[in-house]
Amino acid sequence: MVGSEHDARNRMVTGAADMLGRRGLSAMTVRELARHAGAPLGSTYHYFPGGKAQLAAEAVRWADAHTTSELHRAAAAGPAAMLDAFLRSWRESLVESDFQRGCTVLAVAVQNSTDDDDTAARDAAVFAFSNWTAILVRSLRDAGVTHPEAADTATLIVAAVEGAVAMSRAERSTDPLAAVGRRLHAMLAALRS
Amino acid sequence: MVGSEHDARNRMVTGAADMLGRRGLSAMTVRELARHAGAPLGSTYHYFPGGKAQLAAEAVRWADAHTTSELHRAAAAGPAAMLDAFLRSWRESLVESDFQRGCTVLAVAVQNSTDDDDTAARDAAVFAFSNWTAILVRSLRDAGVTHPEAADTATLIVAAVEGAVAMSRAERSTDPLAAVGRRLHAMLAALRS
Repeated sequence: MVGSEHDARNRMVTGAADMLGRRGLSAMTVRELARHAGAPLGSTYHYFPGGKAQLAAEAVRWADAHTTSELHRAAAAGPAAMLDAFLRSWRESLVESDFQRGCTVLAVAVQNSTDDDDTAARDAAVFAFSNWTAILVRSLRDAGVTHPEAADTATLIVAAVEGAVAMSRAERSTDPLAAVGRRLHAMLAALRS
Repeated sequence: MVGSEHDARNRMVTGAADMLGRRGLSAMTVRELARHAGAPLGSTYHYFPGGKAQLAAEAVRWADAHTTSELHRAAAAGPAAMLDAFLRSWRESLVESDFQRGCTVLAVAVQNSTDDDDTAARDAAVFAFSNWTAILVRSLRDAGVTHPEAADTATLIVAAVEGAVAMSRAERSTDPLAAVGRRLHAMLAALRS
């Protein structure tokens, strides 16, 4: 694939991740994504023979890879640093988009598709949540938290931050995310003491 | 309003709450809701002059009232009983719908409308989250938890349960909800000890 083709394809995937995070799966259209990427509509089926379902699944995997790499980067500094990185990344995304964009992965998780092909996007969402949880579990266990607390705590962190991003977005304020962050930090401190 | 008119109107509101919880705001159509309620399409603008935006807002308020009354019913027995009621209600809804239906309020919170009229639904979602949080705050304070822990803990419970419902739905399993429930119960026990 030549550079510009590769770029157009990437622009469609990142554009799909952005559009899913703003409007959800039903309102995402391949036509708008092609326009966003500056690619002819016909060529999108060259890049994505599976159409919208394939694009949505790739967008979720792209969003997953982005968050996974941020969590990995903070992993060496321990669970509290990872939580901080997770919270900071969401706070920046909310503020930068003027609270118009939430989590791409959650957007797919909360919407049934009317199209049976779309299980690929949902499978990618399940995989993303389990990736984030697994990275947090490893970090908690390295910090001395034992099973089953480590697994339950990691699931709580992912669920609470995802829920708080949705609440913050609806409220047009980062207050719910900040409240959840304070409480999770207090819980981590108590676990390790 | 005569009984059957009132019933048809109510069926459209509860049908809208169900449809939002399954498919989100973009995929909800007034046409399908009219069919669901056994009402002629034309009559829906008699019941809901504001169209889809009004229906969505009323659906969110209906879902809010349902959860608020469940939380109130459990309030006298304390924060742990309220958390149990909240978790049980979501677990039942997920299992009963074969993981096809999530939270109506969250569905509205995570989707930007392309229609500017639709802030009524989002406002109703913000109001719902703040209702649930306020009931939990009162219960926590009655149990001796002081400010700001009570407010942060209540926000964490709402955010974590909402996030866990979305994760459970994507996974087609109540495991995330159960993990979050165990961890939140442990946190409540530690707060009161």
